[in-house]
Amino acid sequence: MSIELEDVERAAQRLAGVAHRTPVITSRTLDERKGARVHLKAECFQRGGAFKFRGAYNKISSLDKGALRRGVLAYSSGNHAQAVAIAASLLGTRATIVMPEDAPRAKLDATRGYGAEIVPYDRWTESREEIGARLAEERGLELVRPYDDPLVMAGQGTVALELLEEAPELDLLLVPVSGGGLIAGCATAAKALRPEIRVVGVEPETGDDTRRSLVAGERVRIEVPHTIADGLQAPEPGELTFEVNQRLVDEVVTVTDDEMVEAMVFLFDRLKLVAEPSGAVGTAALLSGKLDASGRSVGVVLSGGNVGAARFAELVS
Amino acid sequence: MSIELEDVERAAQRLAGVAHRTPVITSRTLDERKGARVHLKAECFQRGGAFKFRGAYNKISSLDKGALRRGVLAYSSGNHAQAVAIAASLLGTRATIVMPEDAPRAKLDATRGYGAEIVPYDRWTESREEIGARLAEERGLELVRPYDDPLVMAGQGTVALELLEEAPELDLLLVPVSGGGLIAGCATAAKALRPEIRVVGVEPETGDDTRRSLVAGERVRIEVPHTIADGLQAPEPGELTFEVNQRLVDEVVTVTDDEMVEAMVFLFDRLKLVAEPSGAVGTAALLSGKLDASGRSVGVVLSGGNVGAARFAELVS
Repeated sequence: MSIELEDVERAAQRLAGVAHRTPVITSRTLDERKGARVHLKAECFQRGGAFKFRGAYNKISSLDKGALRRGVLAYSSGNHAQAVAIAASLLGTRATIVMPEDAPRAKLDATRGYGAEIVPYDRWTESREEIGARLAEERGLELVRPYDDPLVMAGQGTVALELLEEAPELDLLLVPVSGGGLIAGCATAAKALRPEIRVVGVEPETGDDTRRSLVAGERVRIEVPHTIADGLQAPEPGELTFEVNQRLVDEVVTVTDDEMVEAMVFLFDRLKLVAEPSGAVGTAALLSGKLDASGRSVGVVLSGGNVGAARFAELVS
Repeated sequence: MSIELEDVERAAQRLAGVAHRTPVITSRTLDERKGARVHLKAECFQRGGAFKFRGAYNKISSLDKGALRRGVLAYSSGNHAQAVAIAASLLGTRATIVMPEDAPRAKLDATRGYGAEIVPYDRWTESREEIGARLAEERGLELVRPYDDPLVMAGQGTVALELLEEAPELDLLLVPVSGGGLIAGCATAAKALRPEIRVVGVEPETGDDTRRSLVAGERVRIEVPHTIADGLQAPEPGELTFEVNQRLVDEVVTVTDDEMVEAMVFLFDRLKLVAEPSGAVGTAALLSGKLDASGRSVGVVLSGGNVGAARFAELVS
C-alpha cells in the first residue's frame, strides 16, 4: 500500500493536459534575505486553487465504470472538496462532499459552483469519517480520501516531480503537512530522483501531530488544532502517509499563525502571490528563520491560494 | 517623434532576458461570465511589480555612455520611480528620483532599496517639474519621462507584442490609460500586427482626460482626479502619446472606484492575482458590462500589482 516513484510518474501521465503545470517562481528579495536560492511551486494557480486536484483526479480517473456511474464522496475542510468536485465533473461523475459548516464561505461557494452536493457537519462535535462512511454505504459512493490513499499520495507527488524538473539542483524541500499526503508523495518523488535532498514538513505550532508522531515513532493523535491554517487541521497523520513519511521525511518544523500572516503579506507585497494560511507555512518557516536555508537551493510548496479577499483583509488588518 | 512597430520590436530585443516575459492568464470563470475568451497579461509579475520597467529600461539602455556616466532623473511617487531605479541599477548608472517627502515609507524604502537617490520635495509648496529641471541642469542628469517619450512608449508596447504572440486571434484589447504611454505603445504594436483589432482604453470615471480629449480632438486638461487608481491620475494626455492615441485608439471607457475594487476582489478570489486599482480597470470594464465582449477574443492588460496588503485590506473591507 506504499508508493514508489513509478506511481507518481503514472499520475503525471494521467494529469498531463488536465492539471495545470503551475509556475515555479523565484524572488531576488527572498533570495537576498535568506542567502539562498528559493523556488516557490505556486499551486495557488492549480485548478481549484490548490494542489489537491492532482490527487483527486489521479484517484477518480482510476475508478472503474460502475464506480463512476454511482459517484464519489469526500470529506474535506475545503480544498480537497473543490478538487473532488472538479475532477468528478471532468470525469462525468457526481461528487457528494461532507464539509464543516464553518468552512470559509469562498470554499463552500466554489465547491457548490463546481456542481457538487454539500453535506455540512459540525467539526467540533461530529466525525466526518463516520458521516462519510455512512453516506458511502447508503448511496454506494466511492470514498475519495483526502490523503490516506496511494493514488491520492501519488497524485500530490507530481508537485515535486515538476518542481525538480525545473530546479533539479534542489537540496531542501519544504512541504506543508496536514494528513501527510502531499509530503508523502513529494518525498517519494524527491528522494527517488535526488537521494541527498532534505525533505522538511511544516505544520502549525498548534497542530504538530506529525512532528510529534515522528518523534514518538508512532501516530499520535492531538486535539483538533485551533489555527488560521484551515487546511492543516488533521488531528493525526494518516496510516499510509505516516508509513511513507516515517521513512522519508527528515524533519518537521512548526510556525505560528502570526508567522503565516507575515508570510502571506510578504508573498502578496513582494511576489504578488495569493497564499492561504496553509499555503504560506513553507515561506513562513523560511522568513521566520525557523529553518536555516543559507547557501541552499530550496523548494517551497505554496500549496494553495483559497483564502478569499475578505478573509485575507481580516487576517492582515 | 511618433513610433512604429519596428520601435516596439527593437525595444523587445533590448528587453529580452532582462524584463520578465509575464504570463498570459485565462480563466474559465471569466470566460463563462462574459461569453468571451479573455487573456490577461499579468504585468503584476513584471520587475518592480508593473509594466513601467519596460519603458524605463528601453529608454535608459538607449542612452550614450556619457549620459549613463552622469545618471538619470525621474519624478514620480509610484511605479515609474521604482522602474527607473531598477533599470538604472541594472545598467550601471545612478538614478535620482524626485519624490514627495510624505510618500509612503514603503515606497521610499523600496526605491532607495534599488539604489536610487531620493530628493524629497514638499508637494504642497514645490513643483516637482521645477526641481527636476533644476537637478537635470545642475547635475547633467537625463530626464526619464513617465510616458511622453518615444522610447518609453515603444518599451510599453512590448506588452501587446508578447500578448499577441500568445493570442494572435485577439480582436479586442483593453488597456489602462493615464498619460497614455502604455496604450500608445500597445496600440502601435497591435494595430500593425492585426489591423482589425479594436483597441479600447480604460480610465477612472473621475479621470477621463483622454476620453474627453479624443472627443474634443485636442488635449483637454482636467483637475487632478480623485480616484483610488493612483497610477491613473495624469490630468491630461501626453503630447506625443495623444498624437498616437488619436490615430489608433478606437474608444475609451470609464470605470468607478467601486468597479475597480470588485475587479480586484474577483482577480484575487478566482484567479489568485494581485492587481492594484489602476491594474484592475480592464477587468472592471469587462465585469461591469461597460463593454460588450461577448463572442470576442479579448486581451486585458493587468498593468500592475503594487497595492500592498494593508491598502488592499482597506479597499476591500
